[in-house]
Amino acid sequence: MSSDKVLLDYGSGGRASQRLISELFLKHLGNPELARLNDAARLDLRGPLAFSTDTFTVDPIFFPGGDIGSLAVHGTVNDVAMLGAEPRFLSCGFIIEEGLPMADLERIVASMGRAAAKAGVFVVTGDTKVVPRSAVDKIFINTTGIGEIIVDPGPSGDRARPGDAVLISGTVGDHGLAVLSTRQGLSFETPVVSDSAALNHLIVRLIRELPDIHVLRDPTRGGLATTLNEIAESSGVGCEIDEAALPISPEVSGGCSFLGLDPLYLANEGKFLCFLPEGLAQRALEIMRSDPLGRAARRIGSVGADNPGKVVLRTGLGGRRLLNMLEGEQLPRIC
Amino acid sequence: MSSDKVLLDYGSGGRASQRLISELFLKHLGNPELARLNDAARLDLRGPLAFSTDTFTVDPIFFPGGDIGSLAVHGTVNDVAMLGAEPRFLSCGFIIEEGLPMADLERIVASMGRAAAKAGVFVVTGDTKVVPRSAVDKIFINTTGIGEIIVDPGPSGDRARPGDAVLISGTVGDHGLAVLSTRQGLSFETPVVSDSAALNHLIVRLIRELPDIHVLRDPTRGGLATTLNEIAESSGVGCEIDEAALPISPEVSGGCSFLGLDPLYLANEGKFLCFLPEGLAQRALEIMRSDPLGRAARRIGSVGADNPGKVVLRTGLGGRRLLNMLEGEQLPRIC
Repeated sequence: MSSDKVLLDYGSGGRASQRLISELFLKHLGNPELARLNDAARLDLRGPLAFSTDTFTVDPIFFPGGDIGSLAVHGTVNDVAMLGAEPRFLSCGFIIEEGLPMADLERIVASMGRAAAKAGVFVVTGDTKVVPRSAVDKIFINTTGIGEIIVDPGPSGDRARPGDAVLISGTVGDHGLAVLSTRQGLSFETPVVSDSAALNHLIVRLIRELPDIHVLRDPTRGGLATTLNEIAESSGVGCEIDEAALPISPEVSGGCSFLGLDPLYLANEGKFLCFLPEGLAQRALEIMRSDPLGRAARRIGSVGADNPGKVVLRTGLGGRRLLNMLEGEQLPRIC
Repeated sequence: MSSDKVLLDYGSGGRASQRLISELFLKHLGNPELARLNDAARLDLRGPLAFSTDTFTVDPIFFPGGDIGSLAVHGTVNDVAMLGAEPRFLSCGFIIEEGLPMADLERIVASMGRAAAKAGVFVVTGDTKVVPRSAVDKIFINTTGIGEIIVDPGPSGDRARPGDAVLISGTVGDHGLAVLSTRQGLSFETPVVSDSAALNHLIVRLIRELPDIHVLRDPTRGGLATTLNEIAESSGVGCEIDEAALPISPEVSGGCSFLGLDPLYLANEGKFLCFLPEGLAQRALEIMRSDPLGRAARRIGSVGADNPGKVVLRTGLGGRRLLNMLEGEQLPRIC
């Protein structure tokens, strides 16, 4: 591009927008459907479909383990996969602040391109708005994804049943702490890295082999505690979680102590919860652990009929306490 | 809601977010699929599908003839329809500035609900982010739409052919001038009102009866001139447009003269261009004029093999000049 900053012209819908699209977006995200540049993309897909949207406003836009571009791909790919679907296509809507360095935009778009290729999804349609200075902070990205549902009825937040085992695919709190410590300019001895990753390949393997999985859900904003509560409420069941079983890395544990944060309420961007009949739990853990993204998978609890809608934490000393949903806002702009 | 302003808590993903969703979004946009509150919606749709995204950043958020909520529904519904598809489902991503009056948010969401009902589409999945003051200006909305393609191959920007007639469904420039005059606090004797509207019912009638329509495109950002140039380029044909045939309301014409704007470059949000074989033009105009949204439909020109990629305007005095694509940005945040 001729300018080293994003100009208002680039969002005009005219000639300058066309140049941005062809020199930047098609370069990194290109595929035959996107290249047609119609107002809408044509998709050959068979229903039933999973459809999900997410807007990413993370601050800072670059953080250890990722950036707003890769996060925007991972977040939506994961939400689609959680319905028991194979994510296929993404749309992408950029809102860019006038004056954003072109190098930052290119780094973000290139990162999206790599993340999409790795996840096996195509960005087929997009939209770019450039707004005057101070109408938005640097760049926000919406992605909306669509995928083919593999098992039907598939996993759903209201399908947890008494007798289910509760599994988590790995450590919790990494993304939230990585973003927060970067934002605040903190550095720990061992840096905390976001877990941002696309989980779809692992999810697809899991549900193809174990189609009777009841719930899949990624504990993003609000963290593990909030997601468990949502599932308990939607399904009308009680969850009992074993505190000692919760996988938390020493770095996250230490950082949270230092900052006074609870890792169970911190966002994750590359983890998922899996509720499934007891008898399938061992095989699910084997499949999860065979994938680098599920290496630290653990069983963390069970579903019962007592305390419907509630999550009970069994603490190390044999006590039990309610694990509530996040009430207020712990960390704005975490994703 | 307990507060009369939008608080950061409402975007936390926790309890406060849930209240916003149930008390506001489900109230105005509710349907059984949205009410499931999964991370993704399940859609029973058959391909091929049309898929389109748009982010709305219009300033001001309320303007004569609409608001950012109805505009966000109309814009995406129209983009999906332009591929010869029946729009079925929308996702909706809100980015809200902390402190936005709840009454404004409710007015916007209620307007989206009415627009969706009128267009016959369902908002089935959504996302809400609340960002700290000054990280976004009031509210931006992304909508992404999906629809079933009715004719296949359907209309596409690269299918204009020599011999095609070029039709427009009504007057041009209304939306752009309505927003701009509101933003600048101008009032004209006869107020200029946005044409924002969902065109899908008219489009579906048109393509069901005339499946051989070559191109449908709504001339939004960049206006009629830019959209005509895009089609001429994509199709490798020349367009010849008769200036005297262009429908422009006296209010828009007068306002544009006063402000030094060219209505051919102003955004429209309820109009479409239709390219189709000469012999079908009369019937298409009849269908368009039978609908209130196409009452002022006109034939404005023809496609030829000369001047490929260019748009030539035949002026009133018999002269001819090139009508170029918008080069820079005439009006940021027009949609």
